[in-house]
Amino acid sequence: MVTRLSTFFLRTLREDPSDAEVTSHRLLVRAGYIRRQAPGVFAWLPLGLKVKAKIETIIREEMAAAGAFEVHFPALLPREPYEVTGRWDEYGDGLFRLQDRKGADYLLAPTHEEVFTLLVKDLYSSYKDLPLTIFQIQDKYRDEARPRAGLLRGREFTMKDAYSFDATDAGLDASYQAQRDAYERIFSRLGLEYVIVAADAGAMGGSKSEEFLHPTAIGEDTFVRSEGGYAANVEAFTTVVPDAIPFDGLGEPIIFDSPDTPTITTLVDHSNAVLDGSYTAADTLKNVVLALTHLDGSRELVVVGLPGDRDVDDKRVEVAFAPAEVEAATADDFEKNPLLVKGYIGPWSATGAVLGEESATGIRYFLDPRVVDGTAWITGANIDQKHVHSLVAGRDFTSDGFIEVATVREGDPAPDGSGPVSLARGMEIGHVFQLGRKYAEVLGLKVLDENGKLVTVTMGSYGIGVTRILAIIAELNNDDRGLIWPESVAPFDVHVVATGRDAAAFTLAESLSSDLEAAGFDVLFDDRPKVSPGVKFGDAELVGVPRIVIVGRGAADGEVELWDRRTGDRTVVPASEAVARLTAS
Amino acid sequence: MVTRLSTFFLRTLREDPSDAEVTSHRLLVRAGYIRRQAPGVFAWLPLGLKVKAKIETIIREEMAAAGAFEVHFPALLPREPYEVTGRWDEYGDGLFRLQDRKGADYLLAPTHEEVFTLLVKDLYSSYKDLPLTIFQIQDKYRDEARPRAGLLRGREFTMKDAYSFDATDAGLDASYQAQRDAYERIFSRLGLEYVIVAADAGAMGGSKSEEFLHPTAIGEDTFVRSEGGYAANVEAFTTVVPDAIPFDGLGEPIIFDSPDTPTITTLVDHSNAVLDGSYTAADTLKNVVLALTHLDGSRELVVVGLPGDRDVDDKRVEVAFAPAEVEAATADDFEKNPLLVKGYIGPWSATGAVLGEESATGIRYFLDPRVVDGTAWITGANIDQKHVHSLVAGRDFTSDGFIEVATVREGDPAPDGSGPVSLARGMEIGHVFQLGRKYAEVLGLKVLDENGKLVTVTMGSYGIGVTRILAIIAELNNDDRGLIWPESVAPFDVHVVATGRDAAAFTLAESLSSDLEAAGFDVLFDDRPKVSPGVKFGDAELVGVPRIVIVGRGAADGEVELWDRRTGDRTVVPASEAVARLTAS
Repeated sequence: MVTRLSTFFLRTLREDPSDAEVTSHRLLVRAGYIRRQAPGVFAWLPLGLKVKAKIETIIREEMAAAGAFEVHFPALLPREPYEVTGRWDEYGDGLFRLQDRKGADYLLAPTHEEVFTLLVKDLYSSYKDLPLTIFQIQDKYRDEARPRAGLLRGREFTMKDAYSFDATDAGLDASYQAQRDAYERIFSRLGLEYVIVAADAGAMGGSKSEEFLHPTAIGEDTFVRSEGGYAANVEAFTTVVPDAIPFDGLGEPIIFDSPDTPTITTLVDHSNAVLDGSYTAADTLKNVVLALTHLDGSRELVVVGLPGDRDVDDKRVEVAFAPAEVEAATADDFEKNPLLVKGYIGPWSATGAVLGEESATGIRYFLDPRVVDGTAWITGANIDQKHVHSLVAGRDFTSDGFIEVATVREGDPAPDGSGPVSLARGMEIGHVFQLGRKYAEVLGLKVLDENGKLVTVTMGSYGIGVTRILAIIAELNNDDRGLIWPESVAPFDVHVVATGRDAAAFTLAESLSSDLEAAGFDVLFDDRPKVSPGVKFGDAELVGVPRIVIVGRGAADGEVELWDRRTGDRTVVPASEAVARLTAS
Repeated sequence: MVTRLSTFFLRTLREDPSDAEVTSHRLLVRAGYIRRQAPGVFAWLPLGLKVKAKIETIIREEMAAAGAFEVHFPALLPREPYEVTGRWDEYGDGLFRLQDRKGADYLLAPTHEEVFTLLVKDLYSSYKDLPLTIFQIQDKYRDEARPRAGLLRGREFTMKDAYSFDATDAGLDASYQAQRDAYERIFSRLGLEYVIVAADAGAMGGSKSEEFLHPTAIGEDTFVRSEGGYAANVEAFTTVVPDAIPFDGLGEPIIFDSPDTPTITTLVDHSNAVLDGSYTAADTLKNVVLALTHLDGSRELVVVGLPGDRDVDDKRVEVAFAPAEVEAATADDFEKNPLLVKGYIGPWSATGAVLGEESATGIRYFLDPRVVDGTAWITGANIDQKHVHSLVAGRDFTSDGFIEVATVREGDPAPDGSGPVSLARGMEIGHVFQLGRKYAEVLGLKVLDENGKLVTVTMGSYGIGVTRILAIIAELNNDDRGLIWPESVAPFDVHVVATGRDAAAFTLAESLSSDLEAAGFDVLFDDRPKVSPGVKFGDAELVGVPRIVIVGRGAADGEVELWDRRTGDRTVVPASEAVARLTAS
């Protein structure tokens, strides 16, 4: 097909949109791919829709190759199934809720586990019906608190979500692997480098969970990897726990004056000045007060103890306490809880009892896994201007449990023994989960097994954000002139630009476009009669079709210029060879 | 491609769904095409999605051929543009409204005139940019009071909506014609017979409006047509107004006793008994009291006078008073308005003044166009048990205007003089509107014309309900065994059924399926090993792929049976010829 720019619905913009925080957003708007309608809600213009359709086609083909069948669920769903699984509440403000004219509750679905489960429950009854993997490519809704970064995090977005159903764990493993393999093929075809990292299943529940991350310095996610092959996002990283130390021979805890030492730095300096020894932050136990807001709206303070050389990681703490929301304790919280002596908090309560014993303070106390029995710490004495040293874990204090919230550092040992990890940044491009039996159990999806016994089905859930992927490809493929699409998803195969006032150039460009069309190329033909070459070249660079053909001055001699948008190389060739050259490239 | 039923996600149902009111709903659910999620909200299973995709492809191809460009707007839209055009309120309870976490108002768009207009306003500025036609295929939402009839009238439904933009009226005519032509091609390809009828633009505003109706006795719409080529739906039909009659020589009105004659029938009988002459219902003037509920919630009573042999038509009265809602006056209304003497209402008020003069009663009075000046009527005297005769229109009473609300009857003259009309029933399958400048004016879409002067753009709006069309095709193509799809939209090209326990049949069916695939057919292969021929044939008939190949007993002799689902014809052919026969058919 040949699409003529003289009539095509496209207007490129000279100015960046004022609300664009990231490159993809800026360029996709300027080059006429998308248009904002509301925060996090976009309209798709013809160029954008074409790229989106190409990504969807690649996904559909690989889903079919993986034996998955396509279905399509509504965005508007009734409350009931989400009520049964608890997600009607768990999603909090992130869920768009509405009522119909009769007052019945509905939601705009953020994800579809519930209704896929119920569909299979409706239609299937035997292990012989399984395995089954079904998917959809569908518009989803999440009422993000801060919709930002254009399509990278929108409130209306297109996802491919697939769900697998198996009667056995081995079956789930196979279904999971088939989707995982399909994802590898999809990202390869999209030209997206990826790392597969262990992930936390988070609010989805379930057991095994992996993310496909595209490694890039501009990524919003941090992940860790070892040279031995370990890879995980920071939320899923687990600390290697040191061996416990016998209590024998350890000194007794001693409280000491430590005026004006409310921070780890001041405490370490003071300790080195007044105590016998050479201490670092790692010898201190930092106690951080967090405020949890539970789903029922109640607020709970908790204290987390961790080595003084580590901080609480925002993402890890979020996962650790989900579905509660976590924030730092406020001045008001401290005022209301005089037992928490700011800057001097320790595992002891002010009454001498261990904080972890609820009877003493009512405040739960959690520990970093490194704080094993027998380790001795300098920490707050729960008395203003006083700390304590030689306080031994397991002997002098205990906790309500261990928790993985401390920052992960370059050089920390990988949990699988594959050596020290390094940190890297990436963007999430896909996610595969083993949901297990959580949804099937709650919603009653059972089948008869070989022995005629009812067994609960085990499920997997597999997601790719289509519109997010498109934005990521744009984010990674551009220069200061505009977009540079990989050929597999470019809106057109070739962009033919006719320049100058010479009718011969337009005639040649016209016939070349027809020849390219005949050879199977989808052609964008800049046939605008009174537009300067500069503007046409600028538009071509902004729009980003990777292969451009300039038909201009050389037309009289039967020559055209092949312009590689990515490398910038321009090659003059006889027009008669252009089709063959482009076919070969 | 070959899709094997042994693993395909399909379960046909033996029972009709209990909530199915129409054939298409019943069969689409039973045959595994769709599944209800909530009233008027459906999930699409693989078979249904395939048919839907085929319809969408035909529409896309014809839109492209008509020079329209595809875009895609969100379903979730902010209130503001719909507030500006007044439709936020006009849609009443039919609009799904919601708020985001910040309390901002949103809607689920029922149609997209506003945002298409604003998009073009954003990007275009000159008459040289026009004409432009853009379209989308997108899921829309209407909170129907009684979602019913399956996909025929859903609350979430897929539509193709196109909008044209022109600087001149002549341009609009051309854009309108291009869409109208495209619709004719689309419905021909879909195998849907159609009649194009004049329609009322209704709540959309605008001038010219036509509907594509499929004529069928089970249609929900009534339309009229003359042998001379006139066609209109009843809402758009206009009455041929007779000439006025000179007042000269007409007798004076005379009030007469008419006890117990509150209906037209009793009045005619009484008149023939007590008056000099032979009267029919057509000689009486019936006065109907209607209660309008305006957008602001206020209630207004109006009276409509029409010949006694006609009734008020529900659809015509709805259009005539839109956007107000209309219902019959209640007993309460009559009680509160003693001037309205039920059964004896005339154009006079009880004070002797004409009802149409607001000063008298405050009640507006409208007339059927047949009540021209000089016509004499028997009608109520606005006094209990009394009527009046020889009451002459234009001399003895006037009105607040003429109104087209009377029923249309077989034999009424077509307004274009093409002869008497007959009535027929049909289903709406498409709608083309000339919106004119209504939206452009309100939303400020102007372009510079040839003289550098700002002119308001004129628009057209063109809709096809994709999911509705699918249901209509199903509604029209079935028998008591199941669906019978037209080839252009069938979910598969050929359904190969392997029957019996003979391995040779399965082997032959397998290779035949491969051969068909190689020849470009999309094949559904019933390879289920332990399912009886009866069940397989039943499923094939229910699913409705029009071409079925049975590979069974004759397989040993290299023979297969070609089964035409529509005619029921079965033909035994050598397997080696099957592909050629199907290709030729």
